[in-house]
Amino acid sequence: MTAKDFGIRAGEVAVELPAKTDAGLYFIGRIRTPWRARKDCPKNARESDAVCTVELDTRWAEGLKDLATSSHIILLYWMDQSPRNLVLQVPAHYGVPRGTFALRSPARPNPIAMSVVKLLRIEGDTLSVVGLDCLDGTPLIDIKPYFASTDSVPEAVVGWHKSKD
Amino acid sequence: MTAKDFGIRAGEVAVELPAKTDAGLYFIGRIRTPWRARKDCPKNARESDAVCTVELDTRWAEGLKDLATSSHIILLYWMDQSPRNLVLQVPAHYGVPRGTFALRSPARPNPIAMSVVKLLRIEGDTLSVVGLDCLDGTPLIDIKPYFASTDSVPEAVVGWHKSKD
Repeated sequence: MTAKDFGIRAGEVAVELPAKTDAGLYFIGRIRTPWRARKDCPKNARESDAVCTVELDTRWAEGLKDLATSSHIILLYWMDQSPRNLVLQVPAHYGVPRGTFALRSPARPNPIAMSVVKLLRIEGDTLSVVGLDCLDGTPLIDIKPYFASTDSVPEAVVGWHKSKD
Repeated sequence: MTAKDFGIRAGEVAVELPAKTDAGLYFIGRIRTPWRARKDCPKNARESDAVCTVELDTRWAEGLKDLATSSHIILLYWMDQSPRNLVLQVPAHYGVPRGTFALRSPARPNPIAMSVVKLLRIEGDTLSVVGLDCLDGTPLIDIKPYFASTDSVPEAVVGWHKSKD
């Protein structure tokens, strides 16, 4: 047990983190949303039609060429306020321990969130999108085009997940 | 121009990388595929029905609890042989410069690939999956359940992309 383990819920399990990281990430921009505290974030991105913005650092702006022809994009972002050592966790709205890799919780070894969002427009270095649920100021790490041919699986099921997602 | 720029193709544009990274990643496992050289990898993951394996480090194994009930999962992995400084690039099979964020090329500021794969089974720390196209030994950085409700957008289009993906 270390100080990091303090405050985990009954049924949660934490592991010792590796002594060092293996690769480095650049934060390439920031996500702007209406939500300043975790309690205000929508539980599910599809619950909200709020228009959020993605501010890409100017250094990378030329990389946006051709992106505006995509109807939907994938955003990867860094959930920098999340613990990384939990392998079993108890989401408040489920109440039972689940494996970290069976959840989309931000608490995971590499706290990278992935969201599929609708792209409304691009103006300069700024993208306007619908479909986010993260905190204002969240660091952006990647933008990708969404290809229905490889990314869309309408028949996919998550068996443990019954009534809601 | 730096040494890293050497070898870029006509029409490609590289930027100066930031002086330092902003966050660290743990490699949490390795992906095992039949492909040992880039030229052998399928151009598109849907071209191949090869069964690949994901070897999760034992440290994190308890995090797999409940994942076997998912029919499809999202894998994030680190394309560690890719340049990170290209903002415009010329994919060999297209022949014209495209913005990095309009492509799924491994060359990007943070060379994280995202693949949606079919989960066949989990045995101990090892997952068997179908739908990968990466090199053998690629470092794994995350496993997530795929939720059709938020991740599947069958009607999504990528306008610049005409005949194939």
